Order: sequence, then C-alpha cells, then structure tokens
Amino acid sequence: MTSTTYKEVTYTVNVEFGDCDPAGIVWFPNFFRWIDAASRHFFVQCGVPPWHETEKTLGVFGTPLVDTHSKFLKTASYGDTLSVKVSVTEWRDKSFVQVYRIMRGDEAIMECEEVRIFAARRTDGKNGIRAVAIPPAIRALC
Amino acid sequence: MTSTTYKEVTYTVNVEFGDCDPAGIVWFPNFFRWIDAASRHFFVQCGVPPWHETEKTLGVFGTPLVDTHSKFLKTASYGDTLSVKVSVTEWRDKSFVQVYRIMRGDEAIMECEEVRIFAARRTDGKNGIRAVAIPPAIRALC
Amino acid sequence: MTSTTYKEVTYTVNVEFGDCDPAGIVWFPNFFRWIDAASRHFFVQCGVPPWHETEKTLGVFGTPLVDTHSKFLKTASYGDTLSVKVSVTEWRDKSFVQVYRIMRGDEAIMECEEVRIFAARRTDGKNGIRAVAIPPAIRALC
Amino acid sequence: MTSTTYKEVTYTVNVEFGDCDPAGIVWFPNFFRWIDAASRHFFVQCGVPPWHETEKTLGVFGTPLVDTHSKFLKTASYGDTLSVKVSVTEWRDKSFVQVYRIMRGDEAIMECEEVRIFAARRTDGKNGIRAVAIPPAIRALC
Repeated sequence: MTSTTYKEVTYTVNVEFGDCDPAGIVWFPNFFRWIDAASRHFFVQCGVPPWHETEKTLGVFGTPLVDTHSKFLKTASYGDTLSVKVSVTEWRDKSFVQVYRIMRGDEAIMECEEVRIFAARRTDGKNGIRAVAIPPAIRALC
Repeated sequence: MTSTTYKEVTYTVNVEFGDCDPAGIVWFPNFFRWIDAASRHFFVQCGVPPWHETEKTLGVFGTPLVDTHSKFLKTASYGDTLSVKVSVTEWRDKSFVQVYRIMRGDEAIMECEEVRIFAARRTDGKNGIRAVAIPPAIRALC
Repeated sequence: MTSTTYKEVTYTVNVEFGDCDPAGIVWFPNFFRWIDAASRHFFVQCGVPPWHETEKTLGVFGTPLVDTHSKFLKTASYGDTLSVKVSVTEWRDKSFVQVYRIMRGDEAIMECEEVRIFAARRTDGKNGIRAVAIPPAIRALC
Repeated sequence: MTSTTYKEVTYTVNVEFGDCDPAGIVWFPNFFRWIDAASRHFFVQCGVPPWHETEKTLGVFGTPLVDTHSKFLKTASYGDTLSVKVSVTEWRDKSFVQVYRIMRGDEAIMECEEVRIFAARRTDGKNGIRAVAIPPAIRALC
C-alpha cells in the first residue's frame, strides 16, 4: 500500500472590484489569470529561476498550456481572499500535470487540472514553440 | 440514420500586442476572454436580448460557467485574425453545453467545451446565484 | 506657515508573467488595474464599507474616474514587487483628487493623479450615473 | 493662415460583458486596452510593419507610453459599439503625441492624449529600454 504526497504551494489572491462582472461575481477568465500566476509561483517557490533566465540557460521560456479542465463550484466576489493550492501531480516525458484548488477558507471555489509543457523556440527557423524534455534540474527542485 | 446539425455562429477576434505575453504568444486567459464574448455573441445573434433586459423579464442575468475543458493546439500572436466558431450542442434541464473551435484560417488553434447555466439571483436572501430551468423563450431562439 | 499631510495607504503588487507584453515589460493598462485596486484599498483601509453595502446605505456604488494624468518613469517586469502609495489630496464638492506613486523599492516607476466622483444611479429613469456630494460619513473616515 | 490636418484612423470596439464591472459600466482600464490597440492599429494602417519585424530592422520593439492624460465623459456598457479615432498630432525628436477620441455614434465617451516613444533595448548591457530618434521610415508612412 502506498500513498503519494505532492509538494503543495499556496498563492494568495485578493479579489478586486475590477475582477468582477456586471453580475457582481468574478468574471471567469480572471480565475485563469490567477491560476497562471500560481503555476509560476509554484516554480519560484521551488527555487526555479525566472523564465527570462531559464531561456538563456535551458532555452525554456515558459510553461504554456496544452490542456485544461476546470470546475467552477461557487462564486466569489471582491473583498474575498482566495487561496490557490497548487501541485505538480505527474511528470511525463515532455509534459506535466499541474493541479489547482481555489479555496475561500474551507469552501472550494474552483478546481483545475492542466497539462503544460516546458517550451523552447523552434529550431527549424519557423515561428512557434516546441516542447522540450522535462529539464532534470527543474524537476529535481520541485 | 440521423445526423444532427447545430446552429453555428462565428465571432471574429483581432489579436492585439497586449494580448501576448513575454514569449510573444497569446497569454491563454485571453482565449477565455474571447470565448466568453463568443458565448454571449451566439445568443445575441440568435436574437436573445442582452442580460440586463433578461434580468428584468426572466430573472436571468447571465450564463456562468460550471465546467470547461480546453485544448490548446497551436499558438497565436498579434496581427492574427481568429474565428471563434460557437454552437450549443446539448440542452439539459438546467444547463447546456456550448462548444468552440478557434481557427486561424484552416488551422485549429484551440478547442473548448463548456457547461453553462442560466443564472438568477438566489431567492432565499443569501448572496450567490442559482441555475434556473432553460427558459423556453431563449431555447426557441437558438 | 502650514504644512499639510495626507493619510497614505500602500497597496502591494506582485508583477506576474501575464502582466507583461512581448517586450517583456508591464503592459501599461495593467498599471491602471493596480491603481484602481489601490483606490478601493485606500477606502477599505480607512474603514469605508464595500461598494455593494454603500449602494444600499448611501446609493454610492463606486468611484468612477473623471480625469487621469499619468507619467511612466521606469519599466517594471515580472518578479518585481511594487508598492502603490495612495492618498486623497483634495476633497471638492462632488469630486476628489486621488494621487498614486508606484515604487519599486526607492525607484519611482509611475505617478498618477486622478479626479474621481462618488457615483449613484440616475434618478430620472435613464441609464447612466450621476455624481453625488461627497458623503460626509465617508470623508470623515478618510 | 494655416490649417493642419492629421491622418485619422478609426479602430472599432465592441464592448463585451466582461469589459464591464459590477456597476454595469466599462471598467476604465479596458479603455486603455483599446487605446493601446488603436495606437498600434494606426501604425499598421499607415503601413508600418509589426513590431517583431521592426525589432529586426530598426531595433524598435514597440511604442511605450511616457505620459497619458485622459478625460472620461460618458459611461459605456456591453452591446455598445465604440469608434476610437486616433491621430499623431506632433512629432518630436525622440517622442510623439498620439491623441484619441472614443465615440459612440455622435457622443464623445473618452478623450486621451499620450506621449509615446519608439523604444529599443539598452545597449549598455543593462535591462530596460531607451528612446530612439523617430525612425524617418516610420514617420514618412504616417
């Protein structure tokens, strides 16, 4: 019998007036804004250098999304403080799974599971990006 | 043998410099901004009045997300013109499925499938929203 | 000889990857996002209730902008922590002047001076907003 | 007696639900989003190549703001179609003045006057940007 635990990092969000729509609740693209910040925050907290440095050392300029699946459980509004709990739950060859739970105290507000890649510039002279193998130096930190 | 076709509406997006991140590609929360606009555009094109009118007539102030699943297939950047093709593919009792394909000419850039509800204010005096049965007047238009 | 001091409140911003544009620097509309949050934060710190409460008690649903003048002094990028220093420097009959200095440590990044109003719904049945006299209860708190 | 006319370009905006705040009106940082898009649209309409091309040919990667002064005259809301009328009214040595009038039909909604620069990377090895002399090739097009 095994049990796996993942490093979990918390990113805190203060919901602002301008994050809310005419219904008075958070306009949902803002949840993805916070999730993207929490994703990067996870790596920063693990000690991974900022992307403008990893671009020079590893060619990696960020972790674009490949796939995202989210459930919106409760609404939030301005004045709320939200905790985004973020972990990496799976490392694949050229992608990884990052999961998020957004909480307001004990209440779950949103859940999200993403597949992301470590991206570098294409080397064939064309525009666009390519997935690179998970850099061992980054994985070791996380 | 049957074949089902859905009404499809196109919402056009001109990608702007400020929609892109330091990697020079669209920052993904902006895709959800466009998808939300395309969702409302679908109803407007079908002849549904704006939400501030339906709030008075039907109590419905919008169509918040319950669940969203997206795949990011290619990157886009400023100067691109994108077509968001949107349909409602399923009507349930208190929710509906809205699907999107974002195209740049013939290239698929992103696909998204959402579950949304028609939302009204709670009637028990508490804050928050509740799903109402799909208004027949709206469904008939779509 | 007199000297006037104003209550100053600080709002802290962590600049995120997605706040930056393809040049790698903060895309300027995001500065206004933070300034708007700092404006509200000022009132919250002074003890003014949230706008959805003042709408019920005073008819005031927010403090829309009338005029804004800003200078951008230095660029900022993701990873930076910014302090937005905010004061109200003048109370007029139906408007007030709110000023902001955005600092990164000792470096001034941006300065902004705004004229805002306390807004209520129009009472003539038309859409739109109207400026109300500065509510004494709010001014007394600030 | 002289009269000066400036080339004027129009950028069209369809205001979306998510552009509006809990007061039901456009949240003002979105006006700056549209103004930035209109600024770039002006140069595109004049035949100036995209910034990722001018970065290679002229070192110019964009036109960051130095100073902006705006007046908000009327509110706008979702469903509105706005016309952003944009001109360059003054060319200085290392900066230029760009002005905007945002109209809803005949109604003026917002006015804005900006000072912008053509920016290149610093050449002293430090981070940050520097203003370059107005590129004659760009000025000739506008």
